[in-house]
Amino acid sequence: MGKGRIEAFSDGVLAIIITIMVLELKVPHGENLQDLKPLIPVIISYVLSFIYIGIYWNNHHHMMQIVKKVNGSILWLNMHLLFWLSIIPFATAWMGENHFSKWPVILYGFILLMAAIAYYFLAHSLISFHGKESILSVAIGKDKKRIISVIMYITRIILAFINSWFGFMIYVLVAFIWFIPDKRIEQNID
Amino acid sequence: MGKGRIEAFSDGVLAIIITIMVLELKVPHGENLQDLKPLIPVIISYVLSFIYIGIYWNNHHHMMQIVKKVNGSILWLNMHLLFWLSIIPFATAWMGENHFSKWPVILYGFILLMAAIAYYFLAHSLISFHGKESILSVAIGKDKKRIISVIMYITRIILAFINSWFGFMIYVLVAFIWFIPDKRIEQNID
Amino acid sequence: MGKGRIEAFSDGVLAIIITIMVLELKVPHGENLQDLKPLIPVIISYVLSFIYIGIYWNNHHHMMQIVKKVNGSILWLNMHLLFWLSIIPFATAWMGENHFSKWPVILYGFILLMAAIAYYFLAHSLISFHGKESILSVAIGKDKKRIISVIMYITRIILAFINSWFGFMIYVLVAFIWFIPDKRIEQNID
Amino acid sequence: MGKGRIEAFSDGVLAIIITIMVLELKVPHGENLQDLKPLIPVIISYVLSFIYIGIYWNNHHHMMQIVKKVNGSILWLNMHLLFWLSIIPFATAWMGENHFSKWPVILYGFILLMAAIAYYFLAHSLISFHGKESILSVAIGKDKKRIISVIMYITRIILAFINSWFGFMIYVLVAFIWFIPDKRIEQNID
Repeated sequence: MGKGRIEAFSDGVLAIIITIMVLELKVPHGENLQDLKPLIPVIISYVLSFIYIGIYWNNHHHMMQIVKKVNGSILWLNMHLLFWLSIIPFATAWMGENHFSKWPVILYGFILLMAAIAYYFLAHSLISFHGKESILSVAIGKDKKRIISVIMYITRIILAFINSWFGFMIYVLVAFIWFIPDKRIEQNID
Repeated sequence: MGKGRIEAFSDGVLAIIITIMVLELKVPHGENLQDLKPLIPVIISYVLSFIYIGIYWNNHHHMMQIVKKVNGSILWLNMHLLFWLSIIPFATAWMGENHFSKWPVILYGFILLMAAIAYYFLAHSLISFHGKESILSVAIGKDKKRIISVIMYITRIILAFINSWFGFMIYVLVAFIWFIPDKRIEQNID
Repeated sequence: MGKGRIEAFSDGVLAIIITIMVLELKVPHGENLQDLKPLIPVIISYVLSFIYIGIYWNNHHHMMQIVKKVNGSILWLNMHLLFWLSIIPFATAWMGENHFSKWPVILYGFILLMAAIAYYFLAHSLISFHGKESILSVAIGKDKKRIISVIMYITRIILAFINSWFGFMIYVLVAFIWFIPDKRIEQNID
Repeated sequence: MGKGRIEAFSDGVLAIIITIMVLELKVPHGENLQDLKPLIPVIISYVLSFIYIGIYWNNHHHMMQIVKKVNGSILWLNMHLLFWLSIIPFATAWMGENHFSKWPVILYGFILLMAAIAYYFLAHSLISFHGKESILSVAIGKDKKRIISVIMYITRIILAFINSWFGFMIYVLVAFIWFIPDKRIEQNID
């Protein structure tokens, strides 16, 4: 089974997710600069989610490049990943409107955690489908970055119970770690 | 006539349908965990519709893989299928907001029934266009699963007049039956 | 210059136009069947616009299949067509909410007229770019159907000043004429 | 690394941006022609943004045609461009609803300026990745038009402090300069 359409569908869904988040930026009624001020937390969470979706798109793009074939369960694991990513606009808006208070930050972290786990399942299903000796398997390998992020997400959810802004900072930190796409894959393609 | 653009257009429409449903998840005003509680039925119906659209995308993807050519009437039968699927976000929102009460559940079932019939028409038009001896014809065959679902949808619409939650359970059951994409097609490709 | 990306972009825009119209179907607050009753004109105009966008997509698809190359001005004429089509959701919603009263019906007709003119410009620019002896030129030819629709749109706009429902009927009639995609193109491909 | 998916993703995002702007055209409650009157500034800013997104799509399309390969940082510079373009619907709506008053016009200009800078970074990163002697480098060259626009955007932001309508006129002027896609690239392909 070809991988073309799974890429096209994922691109479509990710493009829509990243774009409809802007609909949560409600146009203020006033026409002055200070009317934009209440939007600042909404904009910050928009930027953060934009970067996260961008990271997922980049990594998905990288991983799919060395994928040769897909099967039915991979289609569903990909759909599962898209499901968690599709709820990000909702969590983003809730977090932005409530100025990064405790529960919205926890929900946001929970969804990122589930998306990370979904990505992990997808990657490992692709590896086992391509075989242990495939380029994909070597390229993804032990995936330390992902394990670190999962630990940090969980830490962050716990920390959010103490101080939500501190939790938010960890999201930004994880985004930084993931900013650079998988060098491993790029090296293995060459 | 090539099948590339019909796939691209269907992917686009399905990607948008599956994603705009999240816009019905209205951000709650409070910032506590219990503020999410009224959203639970909306989230359940979102998940159910996400799975249904996913099933349709998967089956469409499978069927289109062995399609070699399309004609004008197939384009319209595909558009007809997309029409019924495009109303799912509306029916999902109505069902979610009214906690699975009678009429919303019946409407949801009616739309799923029409989508199943539209898919049936599309599949049979493709078979007759490719010929009785084509791989497509052998692969889709008698299509027992689809006949069972149509019977279950109708049963469910009738049952919804008695008890809507019971009707809802049948939707979940049908989704389970369809969860695995057409093994027949996968086997026939190999 | 290749035609691949102009097709992809047009497919994307048309897929979004056809799908976001459903967002105008506001979920009713009640849970009974009669709560859907005020939505009937909205649904009728949704179906009509769905068919129109479907017709444009089908014809665009057919025409693009025999296109070999595009240039900068064709990109802009295509964008011009997409512009008028992109306002259809707005005109659809206005017409649906006001039960096909005079001015909404006139606006809807005006936008369809402009879209038809934009399509005409695009088709003729493609013909002159491919040469008078190209398949495209022979396939599109005198384009009687389009001239008839333009006359009918204008008639309809005039008639809408007298009776808007009669004008609406003409829209339905024009949609029927266009329902079948260009047989001429299909014949010329073979 | 192939350029196919970066094109597909950008097409998707741009198609959605250009289309969701129409959701800001709120359907008026009345059914008369004068009920559309308050929408005139909203429609003007919609048309202007439609043209700007169209310009970006056209230029992106042209530039990508002669691109041969992409790397991780180019993916992110492209994402950066899409980020600024994704805020255009918000700025468009704010500008339209406030009848081109000072701050909305300044914000709109600021976003266009950032998008122009983002495009500049993307173009130069592509040039340095393809080498100084590549077609891309020759085709884009000194890029006078872009430098002129950046100067005009800054002028316009300053002018908006004096008179916002005058600033708005400069946007229209810049749009005109960019209307014709890069002839340089078209010539270099031949």
